[in-house]
Formats: sequence, C-alpha cells, structure tokens
Amino acid sequence: MEKWRAADRLLKFSSSCKSKQGKYFYSVATTVHRNPLFSSISPDDISYFKTILGERGVVQDALALDAANTDWMGKYRGSSKLLLQPKNTEEVSQILKYCNSRCLAVVPQGGNTGLVGGSVPVFDEVIINVGLMRNILSFDKVIVSGVLVCEAGCILENLISFLDDEGFIMPLDLGAKGSCQIGGNVSTNAGGLRLLRYGSLHGSVLGLEAVLANGTVLDMLGTLRKDNTGYDLKHLFIGSEGSLGIVTKVSILTPPKLSSVNIAFLACEDYTSCQKLLLEAKKKLGGILSAFEFLDSDAMSLVLKHLDGVRNPLPPSIHNFYILIETTGSNETFDKENLEAFLLHSVESGLVANGVLAQDINQASSFWHIREGLPEALMKAGAVYKYDLSLPLEKMYDLVEEMRVQIGPAAKVVAYGHLGDGNLHLNISAPAYDDNILAKIEPFVYEWTSKNRGSISAEHGLGLMKAAKIHYSKSPETVRLMIDFDYCVFELLPDTSCLDDNHSIICLCLSA
Amino acid sequence: MEKWRAADRLLKFSSSCKSKQGKYFYSVATTVHRNPLFSSISPDDISYFKTILGERGVVQDALALDAANTDWMGKYRGSSKLLLQPKNTEEVSQILKYCNSRCLAVVPQGGNTGLVGGSVPVFDEVIINVGLMRNILSFDKVIVSGVLVCEAGCILENLISFLDDEGFIMPLDLGAKGSCQIGGNVSTNAGGLRLLRYGSLHGSVLGLEAVLANGTVLDMLGTLRKDNTGYDLKHLFIGSEGSLGIVTKVSILTPPKLSSVNIAFLACEDYTSCQKLLLEAKKKLGGILSAFEFLDSDAMSLVLKHLDGVRNPLPPSIHNFYILIETTGSNETFDKENLEAFLLHSVESGLVANGVLAQDINQASSFWHIREGLPEALMKAGAVYKYDLSLPLEKMYDLVEEMRVQIGPAAKVVAYGHLGDGNLHLNISAPAYDDNILAKIEPFVYEWTSKNRGSISAEHGLGLMKAAKIHYSKSPETVRLMIDFDYCVFELLPDTSCLDDNHSIICLCLSA
Repeated sequence: MEKWRAADRLLKFSSSCKSKQGKYFYSVATTVHRNPLFSSISPDDISYFKTILGERGVVQDALALDAANTDWMGKYRGSSKLLLQPKNTEEVSQILKYCNSRCLAVVPQGGNTGLVGGSVPVFDEVIINVGLMRNILSFDKVIVSGVLVCEAGCILENLISFLDDEGFIMPLDLGAKGSCQIGGNVSTNAGGLRLLRYGSLHGSVLGLEAVLANGTVLDMLGTLRKDNTGYDLKHLFIGSEGSLGIVTKVSILTPPKLSSVNIAFLACEDYTSCQKLLLEAKKKLGGILSAFEFLDSDAMSLVLKHLDGVRNPLPPSIHNFYILIETTGSNETFDKENLEAFLLHSVESGLVANGVLAQDINQASSFWHIREGLPEALMKAGAVYKYDLSLPLEKMYDLVEEMRVQIGPAAKVVAYGHLGDGNLHLNISAPAYDDNILAKIEPFVYEWTSKNRGSISAEHGLGLMKAAKIHYSKSPETVRLMIDFDYCVFELLPDTSCLDDNHSIICLCLSA
Repeated sequence: MEKWRAADRLLKFSSSCKSKQGKYFYSVATTVHRNPLFSSISPDDISYFKTILGERGVVQDALALDAANTDWMGKYRGSSKLLLQPKNTEEVSQILKYCNSRCLAVVPQGGNTGLVGGSVPVFDEVIINVGLMRNILSFDKVIVSGVLVCEAGCILENLISFLDDEGFIMPLDLGAKGSCQIGGNVSTNAGGLRLLRYGSLHGSVLGLEAVLANGTVLDMLGTLRKDNTGYDLKHLFIGSEGSLGIVTKVSILTPPKLSSVNIAFLACEDYTSCQKLLLEAKKKLGGILSAFEFLDSDAMSLVLKHLDGVRNPLPPSIHNFYILIETTGSNETFDKENLEAFLLHSVESGLVANGVLAQDINQASSFWHIREGLPEALMKAGAVYKYDLSLPLEKMYDLVEEMRVQIGPAAKVVAYGHLGDGNLHLNISAPAYDDNILAKIEPFVYEWTSKNRGSISAEHGLGLMKAAKIHYSKSPETVRLMIDFDYCVFELLPDTSCLDDNHSIICLCLSA
C-alpha cells in the first residue's frame, strides 16, 4: 500500500478530478454496463433512509457526493446520488436489508484510499460509508493479550495513536493511514510496511463482525488466538473487497511496542546483491528485522526531482538499487551494534556499495520519506500506470527490465516495493495518459506475471481495474468456486459479483 | 497439540485399543447413526480401486485395518473394510470421483494422531490415506524466500529434518511430529509449540492443492507471500478437518533457522504472576520469545510420578505453577544475557519464586520433556478426559479451580498448555472411565467456555467428539453459513457435514 494523507488527497482531487487528460482510466481499460436488474433510487427510498439514519446520515450534497464518487487517483468515477452514513451495526443491517428488498445496488466505502477502483461506485450505487462507526470497543492491555476490538470506521492512524499511548502497535502500517479505515483495511487485506515482521491480516485479525447483503449480522468477533471449531469464515471476508458483506467490527491482535528502532539506507549495484542482502538480513537480523524495502535508480531520480526537500542520502552519484532496512527490537545498544555489524559485513563482502545508518529520528524520517513519497512524486511527474505485483523474488526485476524494452522511450518504468515480501510496485510514468502506452503495458504485464506464477494484485485488490483479470492469477476451478459462493451461499445477483467479467466488485444485492 | 511418537502410538494401541474400560468414548458422549444414503463396498468396487491403485494401494489386511480404524487414544473406532493409499493427486481425484458416483462415504486420514475422533471412520467409510504422497517438490533457499512445496503425506519430522539441513525451520512443531503428516496438520490447523512466535497456519501456509468430493482438483498452490486476487479459498480448507476436500499439496513459508536457543524453567506461586510474567516477557524479550508454556502443580506431580527419569527441576518442593520460556535469536551472547536479566528482574520483582536457565542441550531437553511428556504421563495414570480450550487469559485458571470443586475427589484436574496463546489443555485424570465423572465435566466445561467467549477447541478440532457442540463457540448465523457451504457449494450430502449434529466431520460425498 502506498502513502498519502487526507490533506494530500483533497489536493489531488482538486487537480486530478478535473481530469486533465479528459478521461477516466476505466474508459480505456474496462467496458462495463449497468445491470438492468437494479432499481434506481426513488423519493420514497430517501424518506425511508431518513427514518433509519436521521437527516445527517443521508447525504445528497453535491460536493460530498463528488468526493465520494471519485477515487483518490482521480481515475475512477461513479454517479451515485446517495451517500449513507450509518452509526452502528443495526443501521447497516437495516440499510442492506432494505436495499436488498428494493434491489438497489450498494457500494461499501471506507477511507476511499484504494488504487484499483474498488471503493467508488461504477454507476449509481448507494454508497455506504461506516466512517461514523469509530469507537474503540475494548483493549485488554491489563490482561496481556493486546487484543483491540473496534468499529470498522476507525481510522488506522487513530488506532496507531491510541495503541502508542498503551505501549502497543498496530500490526499494519501504510501510507494511507491518515484516511484509511480499519474495516477497509481488513476488507482489502491491506499489506503495507509491517507485513514482513507481523504477517498478513489473515494472521492478525482474530475476529470480525460483518453484515451480509440481506441484513444478516454475522458475529465472528472472537478475541482468541486459537479457535478450531468449524470453518474459519472470517478469512473469506478478509480481502473480499466488500463483495460478500460489510465489515462492521474488527478484533485484532496487536504486538507490544518495542523501544529500539533503527534504520539503514543502503545502495546495491545489482539486483542479485539485493536478494542476497535480504537472505543475509533474515539470517543475521533474525527477529528484529521489521522492514526491507527497495527502490531502483529511476525511482530515486524521480523522488529527487519531484519531492520538495529530499536530498540524495548517499551522494554524489545515483546507485542502481537502494534498500531501506528497519529493525525493531527491545535493546537499543545491542540492536544498533547488530545492525552496524551486519552493514559492515555487507560492505566488506561486496553486497552493499554504500550505506548509512540513521543517526536520529529526523534522518530516519527522511529515509522513510524517500520510500513513502514515491506515489506522490509519481503523481507530480504526470500520468502514471500503477501495477502491484507479487512475483518470485528472483524473477521480479526481469519484468522491470523487459517492460523497459517493451515500452521504449515513451515512458519511464519506475520500480520499488516491499522486497522482503516479494511485492513489486511497478509504475509506468508518462507525460500524459495514452492508449498506445497502455497497449504496450497490458496485457503484457498480466501475461508475464501469470506465466511466472505471480499475482496480478499483491495487496491492492482487484477492484474495477482487475476484476475481469482474475484468471491471470487464479485457476478456473477456483474462480468457479468463488462464483458459487457468491450465488449459492451469499445469494448475490448474477452480474454483481466481483468475479464476474461484466461488473465490478462493489455491488451487494441478493436476488430479489 | 500434544506429544507422542510413532513408537508410543503402537504401544498405546496394544494396551488401550483393547479398551480396558470395555467401551469407547463416543458410546457415552455421542449417538450417531449411519446415513442410509451411503452405499456399502462391493467386490466390483475393490476391483475398480485395484485398477487405479494397483494391489499395493488397496489394503484389506485385518491388522492394518484395525490400526487405521482406531484412533491414537483408543477411544474412537470404526469398522472400515478398506484403506486406500493413492500415490498422487490424480489417483486421489479418481478415488473421490468414483466414491462420489457410487455414494461411498470416505474419511481422509493423515498420521492418525488426532485427539477428537476426526481421523478414523465412524462406520464403514473408505479410509483414504495419502501417506505414500511424501515428496518434497521444491524448496527455494537459493532465492531467499524459504518457501517449501511438498506433498500432503510428508511427515512433519521429516520436513523439519530436511529444513534443518538447509538452515531453515518449519513454522510449526508439535509432539506428534514423528507420525503426523503436513496435510493433516493443515487440514486440522494444527497449533503446537511455535505458534506464539510464528503464528497460525493461516499465516504460514501460502498455498494448497485440494481435491473436492467430486474429484475436482483445486489448484491454489501459490508460493507468494501476498496475493489479493479474489477470495482466499485456501483458508476454508485450513482447519476444516477434511470435510470439504482432501489436501494433496502444501506450500508453506519457512523461517530461517536461528543459531541461539535458550530455555528457562521458572516457578510462580500464583496465576496472576504467570500472566504478568507473560506480559513482561513479550515486552522485554520482544522478537526472541519463541515459547511460553505453563503447567500447574498437579501436572508436575503427575509427570514426576509417571514419567521415567524425570527429576524435579526446582527442588525440593512443588510450586503452584511452572513456566517454560524459550527464546530463539541470532546472537548467543546477547540472547543469554537478555534472558538472564529478564529472569533476575522477575525474581527481584517477586513474579518468579524460583528459576533455572538450561546450561546445555541436555538440560534444555529435560525441561521440554516435562512439558511434552504430560500426555504420556496422563495415559499412564489411567483414564483421561481431555479438553483443549481457548479462553481469555485472565479467566483461564478460574475454570480449572471451578472444575476441581465440581468434580470433587473422584478425579484429578490437571492443567497445562500454551499460555502465550491463551490455550489451556484441561485434563481430568481418573482411575477408570466413568459416566458419573463425565456427567460432572460435560456440559459444564462447554457451557463455562461458551459463557466466557472461549473456544471449545483451540487446536484439536471438532472431530466426532465435538462436531455436535459447535454451537458453544459459533453463532447460529455462522453455523448456518457453514452448512450452506457444505450443501450449496461443495454439494455434500445432508447428514455428512461436520456441522450436522447427526454425524461426524469425516464423510465426503456429494449428492448422488
């Protein structure tokens, strides 16, 4: 996941929502048609929603709707006329039950920070945003397990702050933390910067409450580390992008905050050295390794050119690859010595060409800013085609190099990502959106990824952008089973499934 | 999960299969009836299986069938006349497709080390054991990710040995490692001794191949750390105890082996101190804490009485509680100093009454032997009623004390488990099985656990023992959804689902 803040987001809207290239991404990449089985909103519907939610919960204001209809990138845009803001699970249930009975399509929306067109309407779906459901329900620091239970609308950064005061941390952290909501994080199985250390949300989330399209409230809100009684259904909701139900509460295991954090910024001259360095780091830094991020020379050049106040951390030249290593442990002296010894050994063995250990919190922040500022730098540089891929580590950079040959001088190929997780953020940066460039990228990038048994979406999800492309990463039998889930178990309408080629992930509506 | 070895298992069979109490556990606890929709095996069926598997793969030998029909505890016993041993996925698929067309019930069996009657037939189901599918398919130490791909029949201990040579470890370890198979581990979501450090299999398993009841092979055998393309269906198979399909291949993320392992054995005088010690350990030992196990005084007395060669590690008296702490890190000197400082501080602050740090591998093994030898000691002591519960940590020992009051002098209540995971192994040890004792335990233990939002099966699964008791831990809506999965998506026959009160988890057969 990439970095931005609420303030940035509004800024971006004002420039890119106006769509300086004069079209939205999906107009090029995807053709979708509104499902005629869905109803349209009537005045009676509005009245009904007001009886459930009050005036404040029923938003029809043009400015607010414009923001809720448009994604952060300014690439996807719906035409919803109605944004609902429930205050509790019961209201979510009542909304969904009603929409289901009226056959009104809905789209669940969290912080609207997604990058694949999964959080905004495609047409006139009712937008349901749980942002008012932002209570922390319990936290049991006294009884040592560190389990946080909260409502789905809690903003990630607020949870991080809350836990910080309690001596704990969230097991996930990502650039969008200032806007994204924990319910959206869970629904999209957000990855981010701590996955290397704390694993995916499938490991950290202990329980969920979710509301199905027919209004049924599913209580899976366990707080236990271990529970082997029947199928662990919560996992279906983690990463299903709101297509099976709306997550309303989350129970999550949070690790204790450790006092010692150290950051190193290193340069490698070839990709093989980056891989070897990762293996060494896993072995030598063992339990304290908490991040292993990489960027290539084009990414560094882009940051230096477009982000204010960033200086080359390893001057004077630009190296081929950069690695950011973070360790988090409990012993300041030892951890620092350990990282220093690791760096020294890496330089002596030739894996690392140059490197620096952050001497204070400011320098540490400036190193992170280079890595986390990349999405912003890309936005400033012009049009950007973003791909979020998992690939076998040894093949990962081959794709970048082949893509450069494929595209030629028309655009820059910029690579960075969570190397420790095998997750490449491949960005093609061009002066303006151009169908000729897109035709050189797709389906090439998907076919290449599929051929190498990678995933076409490591952490961003499918959304509208890739719903029709699931076959590149999943077998036909698996996709068939997902569709059976949608139709048979969750009784969703045909053509409303995330897995259907003809529509997006975002519509929740049972068969009438 | 608890400890035993293949050799122990055979020993146990010879004594307890003869059922010295003259009855099997389920005769008391559960009443089940054979589903009349199932066919019985005919000579034509045998001939067909021989054409698929050859003579060797079709086992009708009485001795082999007796072992495969009886569980390790000698409490559950089926009457199957046929054990099939496929050599590859295609054979598993052909078997299931045929059984499905003939409406023959099947039970998948791994190492048959389960404790809840989930791995043996209830009636005359065809037993399918994938023990001949024991190839390691790939391991990519060269390309740093540590992903192991293997067939489901690989014995856990063999995988541990294989990885040891490569400088890696399995993210799970459990007492049954000498017999249990990785496919069974995954199907039962085995927990064990490393969960505290490496999390559950939902986090470690990257991919699966499974065969559905109709013979469809589901390829979910990804090797990627991150893949957000559609529903993550593999999670349904992890912990579904073979009820949705037979796992045939597993892809699992293995951590690098760290060089420094330290063990401490401590005594606490009250349960509150045990909890506080856990919180301190999580904070002070941070990333190197790899096990936090506990046993109470009754457990220690039992081990000292029944296990050969075990001596009191903290003589002369017996303390109320014992804690085994293991750290695993990359720096011998620092890790040891860290643990020593932690122990010193814990003694000084009064949390720990006494303690010792293992001085060599033999002493470390002897400490582990106390904890891991408990199941064996219990078996030697007589009849044992075993419960595997997850409970909120602060409530956990209340149950033990209330159970002692409830049972009175008729039996001993012995408590131990994975305190770091909130997992209590509650054992009631009596001279002989006795319905009066059982009536004092159940439903009390389940009701108490349910009332405190615990799980009636932390890591052992439901099996025949607890299939009908799922409602104690899961909401009606959730159970309803599981049943919908069985019937609608996987098209299993009514009365063959793990979630149906009338039968066990073990039958795989589509509607005819």
